[in-house]
Amino acid sequence: MHIRVVLPVIGETLVEHVRSEVLAWASPDTKVDVIALERGTASIESEYDEALSAPGILQRIEEAATDGVDGVFITCFGDPGVHAAREIIDAPVVGGFEPAMLTALSLGENVGIITVLPNVVPMLHSLARRYTIERRIGTIRVVDLPVLGLEDHEVLVERLFEQAADAVAKREADVIVLGCTGMLGVAAELRDRLAAAGHRVPVVDPTGAAIAWLESSVRLGVSPSRTTYMPPPAKDRRA
Amino acid sequence: MHIRVVLPVIGETLVEHVRSEVLAWASPDTKVDVIALERGTASIESEYDEALSAPGILQRIEEAATDGVDGVFITCFGDPGVHAAREIIDAPVVGGFEPAMLTALSLGENVGIITVLPNVVPMLHSLARRYTIERRIGTIRVVDLPVLGLEDHEVLVERLFEQAADAVAKREADVIVLGCTGMLGVAAELRDRLAAAGHRVPVVDPTGAAIAWLESSVRLGVSPSRTTYMPPPAKDRRA
Amino acid sequence: MHIRVVLPVIGETLVEHVRSEVLAWASPDTKVDVIALERGTASIESEYDEALSAPGILQRIEEAATDGVDGVFITCFGDPGVHAAREIIDAPVVGGFEPAMLTALSLGENVGIITVLPNVVPMLHSLARRYTIERRIGTIRVVDLPVLGLEDHEVLVERLFEQAADAVAKREADVIVLGCTGMLGVAAELRDRLAAAGHRVPVVDPTGAAIAWLESSVRLGVSPSRTTYMPPPAKDRRA
Amino acid sequence: MHIRVVLPVIGETLVEHVRSEVLAWASPDTKVDVIALERGTASIESEYDEALSAPGILQRIEEAATDGVDGVFITCFGDPGVHAAREIIDAPVVGGFEPAMLTALSLGENVGIITVLPNVVPMLHSLARRYTIERRIGTIRVVDLPVLGLEDHEVLVERLFEQAADAVAKREADVIVLGCTGMLGVAAELRDRLAAAGHRVPVVDPTGAAIAWLESSVRLGVSPSRTTYMPPPAKDRRA
Amino acid sequence: MHIRVVLPVIGETLVEHVRSEVLAWASPDTKVDVIALERGTASIESEYDEALSAPGILQRIEEAATDGVDGVFITCFGDPGVHAAREIIDAPVVGGFEPAMLTALSLGENVGIITVLPNVVPMLHSLARRYTIERRIGTIRVVDLPVLGLEDHEVLVERLFEQAADAVAKREADVIVLGCTGMLGVAAELRDRLAAAGHRVPVVDPTGAAIAWLESSVRLGVSPSRTTYMPPPAKDRRA
Amino acid sequence: MHIRVVLPVIGETLVEHVRSEVLAWASPDTKVDVIALERGTASIESEYDEALSAPGILQRIEEAATDGVDGVFITCFGDPGVHAAREIIDAPVVGGFEPAMLTALSLGENVGIITVLPNVVPMLHSLARRYTIERRIGTIRVVDLPVLGLEDHEVLVERLFEQAADAVAKREADVIVLGCTGMLGVAAELRDRLAAAGHRVPVVDPTGAAIAWLESSVRLGVSPSRTTYMPPPAKDRRA
Repeated sequence: MHIRVVLPVIGETLVEHVRSEVLAWASPDTKVDVIALERGTASIESEYDEALSAPGILQRIEEAATDGVDGVFITCFGDPGVHAAREIIDAPVVGGFEPAMLTALSLGENVGIITVLPNVVPMLHSLARRYTIERRIGTIRVVDLPVLGLEDHEVLVERLFEQAADAVAKREADVIVLGCTGMLGVAAELRDRLAAAGHRVPVVDPTGAAIAWLESSVRLGVSPSRTTYMPPPAKDRRA
Repeated sequence: MHIRVVLPVIGETLVEHVRSEVLAWASPDTKVDVIALERGTASIESEYDEALSAPGILQRIEEAATDGVDGVFITCFGDPGVHAAREIIDAPVVGGFEPAMLTALSLGENVGIITVLPNVVPMLHSLARRYTIERRIGTIRVVDLPVLGLEDHEVLVERLFEQAADAVAKREADVIVLGCTGMLGVAAELRDRLAAAGHRVPVVDPTGAAIAWLESSVRLGVSPSRTTYMPPPAKDRRA
Repeated sequence: MHIRVVLPVIGETLVEHVRSEVLAWASPDTKVDVIALERGTASIESEYDEALSAPGILQRIEEAATDGVDGVFITCFGDPGVHAAREIIDAPVVGGFEPAMLTALSLGENVGIITVLPNVVPMLHSLARRYTIERRIGTIRVVDLPVLGLEDHEVLVERLFEQAADAVAKREADVIVLGCTGMLGVAAELRDRLAAAGHRVPVVDPTGAAIAWLESSVRLGVSPSRTTYMPPPAKDRRA
Repeated sequence: MHIRVVLPVIGETLVEHVRSEVLAWASPDTKVDVIALERGTASIESEYDEALSAPGILQRIEEAATDGVDGVFITCFGDPGVHAAREIIDAPVVGGFEPAMLTALSLGENVGIITVLPNVVPMLHSLARRYTIERRIGTIRVVDLPVLGLEDHEVLVERLFEQAADAVAKREADVIVLGCTGMLGVAAELRDRLAAAGHRVPVVDPTGAAIAWLESSVRLGVSPSRTTYMPPPAKDRRA
Repeated sequence: MHIRVVLPVIGETLVEHVRSEVLAWASPDTKVDVIALERGTASIESEYDEALSAPGILQRIEEAATDGVDGVFITCFGDPGVHAAREIIDAPVVGGFEPAMLTALSLGENVGIITVLPNVVPMLHSLARRYTIERRIGTIRVVDLPVLGLEDHEVLVERLFEQAADAVAKREADVIVLGCTGMLGVAAELRDRLAAAGHRVPVVDPTGAAIAWLESSVRLGVSPSRTTYMPPPAKDRRA
Repeated sequence: MHIRVVLPVIGETLVEHVRSEVLAWASPDTKVDVIALERGTASIESEYDEALSAPGILQRIEEAATDGVDGVFITCFGDPGVHAAREIIDAPVVGGFEPAMLTALSLGENVGIITVLPNVVPMLHSLARRYTIERRIGTIRVVDLPVLGLEDHEVLVERLFEQAADAVAKREADVIVLGCTGMLGVAAELRDRLAAAGHRVPVVDPTGAAIAWLESSVRLGVSPSRTTYMPPPAKDRRA
């Protein structure tokens, strides 16, 4: 199985980190390649960033279609370009939000998302409504760190723990979802710290959820419905 | 009052038609200018088209902000780029969907949208959910003409009438909304044909609704909330 | 354009204040007249008051129909008699709630209403459900002043500010709607005080929203659907 | 137990029929009196009629409060004046809609209402939303007879059967609710005709449901919450 | 009228207490018998307990069907076995949740449930969704006593009062529903204590609500719809 | 990884067929064992059957907990015993409904379920509400064959195709979910027949979806939340 990971930002600095993390979640026999954008933004933290990165993402989707990959992971929790991508490739395409949230729905009543900045919160509420899962969102909280400021592992885990523990204690969350695909390699540690504090709740890593979702979809022989995601009509395009 | 109309497609052919139609709806003392895109697509009929046109739209929004306009109408029923635009300009920004639909809500129980192609239907359902008005959509139907094939006035009115009359007769619609801003200059005629056939229902023109909405917003002194539409953080962008 | 403002209370004391406020919002070429009720209550602060004022309001609607006005504003935030009125006049009719709330929906995620007394809060929740917009109500709060006790401008603005600032700070509101049409001439001041305190959120005045809504509706050539608002069958009536 | 039945129309012609029907449903030890309105309309088939009858109904409620009755049934399926009434009397008050519909919810998945005229259908949808039960309405249909044209028992039963049988066959209804309190004495016959045709579904009579609801409420010692239905503030009223 | 009360637990210790309480709510001419289970659990406080008690409950339902009773009350607030029971008996069957909650809906806006243990809270949310009434649940709280620890009347009333008063004060509840049918004989006292503290809200006893519901259903001639509750196909069963 | 498949019926006849089908979906390194019930019913086609099979299922869950399996699949589309099971084992437990439906949500707008008999349809609507996904159900249809009558492969595929093609053509479904885990080995064939008829929609096999879900959950290190699924309190149980 061949999975293409589109890192929807410009710059190569995160590519290796993402690759190693994706490989850690993927099945041993899954081939993974990771590619960043030629055009876009340094990170995605607003509707504006999402809009600016969309054409660069779709360029990578067209390449993926040409390369005949089996699935595509656009590694951002805001699912940028995901629905447009499904119109132009015959393979499953996911971002981080949808697979992480659908996974979370099977684990408990209220889902608590912990994301990066307040800017992102309204976008996630909009996404939840688009996916008709807004009734299950118990809380959306932030660590108040930008995407490019998540590299300090201890600070990140500490802030995630504070927010998650408070959300569970107030009964706003039964399941925690990490609300940024840049929060790499912290899910298990957060789950264990919560358990040690008496909060036995699952923590869903969106990168892991996305890779597992794609592998499952390929195995199940399903790809996006062509009555929902119709191929775009031919026309002049100059993006 | 100065309203900037962003025609979110490439090519100048539609500019004059849009300008005259907008002027017909606008108050006499409203200044209107219409500008198409440098980069984008010839029409918008898919998520893919929307994504490709977004950076070109946002470039026009930035210019509008610099020019200090009082309001912006992105003249497409899919509201492309609208939410991103609100993050970067301190003035009301609307597409065609939101003002037409909110207007329709005050006119009757079930809203029937008649749009161009089947491709667009799932996008409109997604928009309706995003705006939390999906429960009021009675039906979404199509004239089965592409955006660039709407110029035959008689064919267009005939197909609109067929769909609208059928929707009202089946009690799927109490209000008709024209589901493409390219359906110019047909609302009153459609309303009158429906009335002549015994269907006394209002028909909402999205261009008219958008212009009225912007003028009202300016008069009311309101613009998008900065707790929902936060300014994007500074970062490297190369779109 | 000729707009009839029905002040749905008995007594003439408020008429001039309402007239000047409405004129301040209306277009220069809009003719406005304001008329109070012969029968009704001194103010509307309960379902009981609404019910008692309904026949007096409908008498004014029948006169407005005879006079051939272009639109009617029943100036109360509870929308008393609005739906009955739509059955008997071929022109747009609004109260304060519907146009203010639909306007607010386009401005931000959660709407905070600040009204007069706790008595009114359940009525507004019922209205929100009737209009299928209850999911967007973030909070309904009160200044705890009766309708006839709103004349002290400073007290009113102070209490509005306290409630609005608290609602925004707690993320319960991204948009503020003044929940009584008797809160005249305070919207801009409240908005500016909130902005000065760091809360950049719009404030919607229901009188302004209603006048703009009616003018827009007339311009758009729309009036309430006759499949939703059917003319009442003939019969003996003795109200 | 003393139940006051308010027949919310002018004219005495229906009083005896209603009285005998109510007595047939009531417990033997329940005292029942039936009183029509001094002011109002000959029947209620529109929002307009409801509004005009409200003050006359509330006059009867005030008398009922003075008389110390144990419960009040406003015998109309549109629940006219019910919520206003609850503000001014310390006893349970119901119309026909709420008790019939809540009873129906316990009997099957989708509720089919069969009412008199198309005019009434949007009002019932509004009521359903007010009561947050709209998701359970499978269909609202009409016999296309006015309230004052229901006296031909055979025609009424025939039309009810046609609509109900069709609704059940199309899986739009698992429970039938008679949508007018003027459809007296037909529920059991309709149920039996449906069963004979192979449709084993319950039929809820709104008069019976209302009387049973009031007797149950009195027995349970419950009356409307004063935090939802607050007493109206004192003021000048001239209805 | 003959009502069978199924006490869905093993052991006879509660039978007499339940019988006397049911008789206190029932009409004088209603015959009541109470029977516990042969197989099941000592109390029901989890999905696990509900599942284990289901076959024992259904055995009692089959006996009730053979005995030709007019209605069955499965006396547990979790409605265990209720929907399965409706498939196999031609008479109304209720637990405590559905009749208490539907009764509460007619009394005020937000319903506050006070139940026994935190374990039960997610089950009640699931039930509320199944019955499509989740939007009316304002809060679900606990006295933190197990079902078999409710016998200390004073402790129980004190804890109920604390939770109910706090819920009403915070506007989370306009109506209180006792969330366990083992909370016998406390509803009126709780209501009076709340009223003495200024909280004039109704308190619904699920046992009383269930008995009144069954008696009303029998009087109305309704029983569960056979298009929702179809008879199970014949097959080999060995439970 | 060790997955225990609980076949929630009595009798061994299906065990081998289920085992081979599960093995076909499972990863090569997943150990699978399949075990039927000692007590229960020959098939599950009603709430009654579900209730009777629950204790037998939970006995198998307790054994699975003792055996330390990594995940449990209760192979029935009605998810019988799933929520009770999650209270008593520290490993993921799924039936067929939840993983198939959550998978389907990511593939298209409206989900069409095709199940066995009409008896099952109301149960599936209830499940959809419990899981808060009812808004995405476009249609639930039946092949009108009992669970134990699915062995004729051609008849089954033919009836599935008829229902699925009709549902897609009427725009009631964008994704097809097989609504019985006894519909083994037909998903790919149905998908291909639909595609050949011009309907390019995915078909989700619940057995495959469940196995993939369990393997993904184990890989992600998540199991059901202990704040939603609390361990049952100790007590006397005699099931």
